[in-house]
Amino acid sequence: MIREKKRIHVTQQGRPSSSGNNLDPWYSSYAARAAGLAASEVRALFAVASRPEVVSLAGGMPYVSALPEDLVTGAMDRVMREQGPTALQYGSGQGVPALREQILDVMALEGISASASDIVVTTGSQHALELFSKLFLDPGDVVISEGPSYVTAMVIFKSYQAEISHVPMDDDGLEPEALRQRIAALKAEGKRIKFLYTIPTFHNPAGVTLAESRRAEILEIAKQNDILVLEDNPYGLLYFDKEPPKALRSLDEDGVVYLGTFSKTLAPGFRVGWALAPHAIREKLILANEAAILCPSSFSQLVISEYLASADWKGQIETFRGVYRERKQTMIAALEEHLPMCTWTDPNGGFYVWLTLPEGLDSKAMLPRAVKELVAYTPGTAFYGDGGGAQNMRLSFCYPTPEQIRVGIRRLANVVNGELDLLQTFGGSGSLPGRASSSNYNAPPPNMS
Amino acid sequence: MIREKKRIHVTQQGRPSSSGNNLDPWYSSYAARAAGLAASEVRALFAVASRPEVVSLAGGMPYVSALPEDLVTGAMDRVMREQGPTALQYGSGQGVPALREQILDVMALEGISASASDIVVTTGSQHALELFSKLFLDPGDVVISEGPSYVTAMVIFKSYQAEISHVPMDDDGLEPEALRQRIAALKAEGKRIKFLYTIPTFHNPAGVTLAESRRAEILEIAKQNDILVLEDNPYGLLYFDKEPPKALRSLDEDGVVYLGTFSKTLAPGFRVGWALAPHAIREKLILANEAAILCPSSFSQLVISEYLASADWKGQIETFRGVYRERKQTMIAALEEHLPMCTWTDPNGGFYVWLTLPEGLDSKAMLPRAVKELVAYTPGTAFYGDGGGAQNMRLSFCYPTPEQIRVGIRRLANVVNGELDLLQTFGGSGSLPGRASSSNYNAPPPNMS
Repeated sequence: MIREKKRIHVTQQGRPSSSGNNLDPWYSSYAARAAGLAASEVRALFAVASRPEVVSLAGGMPYVSALPEDLVTGAMDRVMREQGPTALQYGSGQGVPALREQILDVMALEGISASASDIVVTTGSQHALELFSKLFLDPGDVVISEGPSYVTAMVIFKSYQAEISHVPMDDDGLEPEALRQRIAALKAEGKRIKFLYTIPTFHNPAGVTLAESRRAEILEIAKQNDILVLEDNPYGLLYFDKEPPKALRSLDEDGVVYLGTFSKTLAPGFRVGWALAPHAIREKLILANEAAILCPSSFSQLVISEYLASADWKGQIETFRGVYRERKQTMIAALEEHLPMCTWTDPNGGFYVWLTLPEGLDSKAMLPRAVKELVAYTPGTAFYGDGGGAQNMRLSFCYPTPEQIRVGIRRLANVVNGELDLLQTFGGSGSLPGRASSSNYNAPPPNMS
Repeated sequence: MIREKKRIHVTQQGRPSSSGNNLDPWYSSYAARAAGLAASEVRALFAVASRPEVVSLAGGMPYVSALPEDLVTGAMDRVMREQGPTALQYGSGQGVPALREQILDVMALEGISASASDIVVTTGSQHALELFSKLFLDPGDVVISEGPSYVTAMVIFKSYQAEISHVPMDDDGLEPEALRQRIAALKAEGKRIKFLYTIPTFHNPAGVTLAESRRAEILEIAKQNDILVLEDNPYGLLYFDKEPPKALRSLDEDGVVYLGTFSKTLAPGFRVGWALAPHAIREKLILANEAAILCPSSFSQLVISEYLASADWKGQIETFRGVYRERKQTMIAALEEHLPMCTWTDPNGGFYVWLTLPEGLDSKAMLPRAVKELVAYTPGTAFYGDGGGAQNMRLSFCYPTPEQIRVGIRRLANVVNGELDLLQTFGGSGSLPGRASSSNYNAPPPNMS
């Protein structure tokens, strides 16, 4: 029986704890894909790390306090006064037409020309990732992504029983030649590659940006191999100095599905993002969206539409840029001062620095000691599907204040120095207790990812 | 290859049009499950039916105009003033703790005693259905449901490649003996039954309620057969005269996953519902929720929490009850006056009447003529996964005013009488043009379902 073959995770031996246990009477009823949804090993630690005395460099929370509340309150009041019954009612599964028109203006800033009819409004761009994956991924399919990659995208891919194949980046982003070779190798193995998931601009977690010179080349490689490109672009407008290259979607409208969001340029609490997709895919995304949630929140959409119509939203993005620019500069300066034995990326936008520890140190094994020293980060292994990243960590500068960042990096330096002392005393990396690190791209809590 | 065997819907012959066409360059890339997501055949017709001159008895939209806007606006303003940064930020994947506590009070009205830690807040209860199905349904699994059943639940089950097996209802709801026999028959066929999906109270679309005397019996049958019960209860608090029996979940906390929503007792525009589930299932629902959307909207949750804390929400539900009671009475009186050749259910709550046409008439074939007469309804076939329901239609009394209901039923009577004249002139049902009706439980647009 095919089904029994697939359900090896519920056999008596070798059950991963993630798929349940004998205390769960419904243990044998879960679908095979449920085994892909497991709590992160670091989840409990993050719960501790959310105490106020801990400086968290782990979260991906935007600094919403930089948004004047009256801009939002004013938009809400107008929406309720002028369109109350519409805001409170079910709406279309594709999203409010006026908002989709305004989203065209947002995407135009990144060189994208499109039709509002090809936009599907989703519950954050996260849900666009989920819907897209539901539409495309059969068990055993392969998704190619940068290595490292966005943790909760990988959780989704895995939940649809896909395999993730990481292609390395350098300071100019995804390496075209490595991509070519990987595709050829996967095809030689008989694998079915469904899409390339990429965050070309201000990558999460790597902080790097795909160079302009590489963009057409990456698209050409995808096209030659009939591979869809899923471009995830939450941070593109949050650059610090010069504008990044135009979005991949601006170069190819047939082979790219583009994901955008208001979570970083406005506020995540509304849960409004979108997908821009070729016609046929857009039609299926709408049906999948309707099946999953009937329609996105009318209220959230109308408030954002009113905000875009009445507030200086470009000026507000400029404000966010200034906040994050200062925090990034503070973090880099603190790293230079306190952690000269490490290396890191220096992003021109976005939320994250990707740090590489000295040889022999393991970021996940080190995390409990860091939390004890009242600083938290996300271990690099969270961002790989294949066990990579043990020597790395993601440091977020988006939410903590500059002063907290300085304190956090000092504390982190204490931890790293302590680890290095231990390493010198006891020798090679294999000999320290608790060093073993395994693949872990299960999700940390959402406000940490 | 297993994958190729499953993907028969993309072979060259016999492609259902639903899975795409040759104009879609990504046609061969979709997952097998995408074939289950197809646009309803009546979708185009519903677009016409949304013109203002058409009386729509097809929608499931609550009458939100009966909700005083200042109750909502006041709650919003207080949330932004007192908890602005929290409302705008990411939150927990399980939902706001204070709201989960308040949901206990709502469920207590239906006899449910539970812990807030077993509640997962979702993007409407629709998304709870989606997440639950993702967790439990492997291809080929069987979901048992009433026949007819809620259309967009069946769309979800089908999207996870499950089979739907309908068990009949009578005026006292699901028939226990029929359920017993169906389970035995499915087991004899070697089918894997995953859960019983049921709307025990004020059924959508049938309008009937599972009798108190049957509730423990249905649960016992499920327990004996190790079948989970998924209790969908959007309408339970919207009774007209006497309270309905207590929820199934009040009788069994280990074998029932309960779904609730604020869409009908407050407003659907916020997209806030919930699941109440046994511990282990709840844990997986949280992980699935986080993967799908990171977290439900903080803003929506806090506004509802503030509304529940400060407004007379029970009084508001009483107001809704009065609105819907009057509309139901108006519809029944109009049916008695104008459609004596039909039969219908007379619900004690909820939004819907289920009408049975005279022998020989087909509600889907009749729909274009109805829309031409400026009245719309949902054909009965939409609510079956097996071709049933051709002689039935769902009539909604929730949204149109009493006067519109009277006009709509008069117009419907003209259509039915016209059809009966045709039938008498041309003979048996098979001989009329356009009579053929096939299984169609694809989704109408969400504001129609």
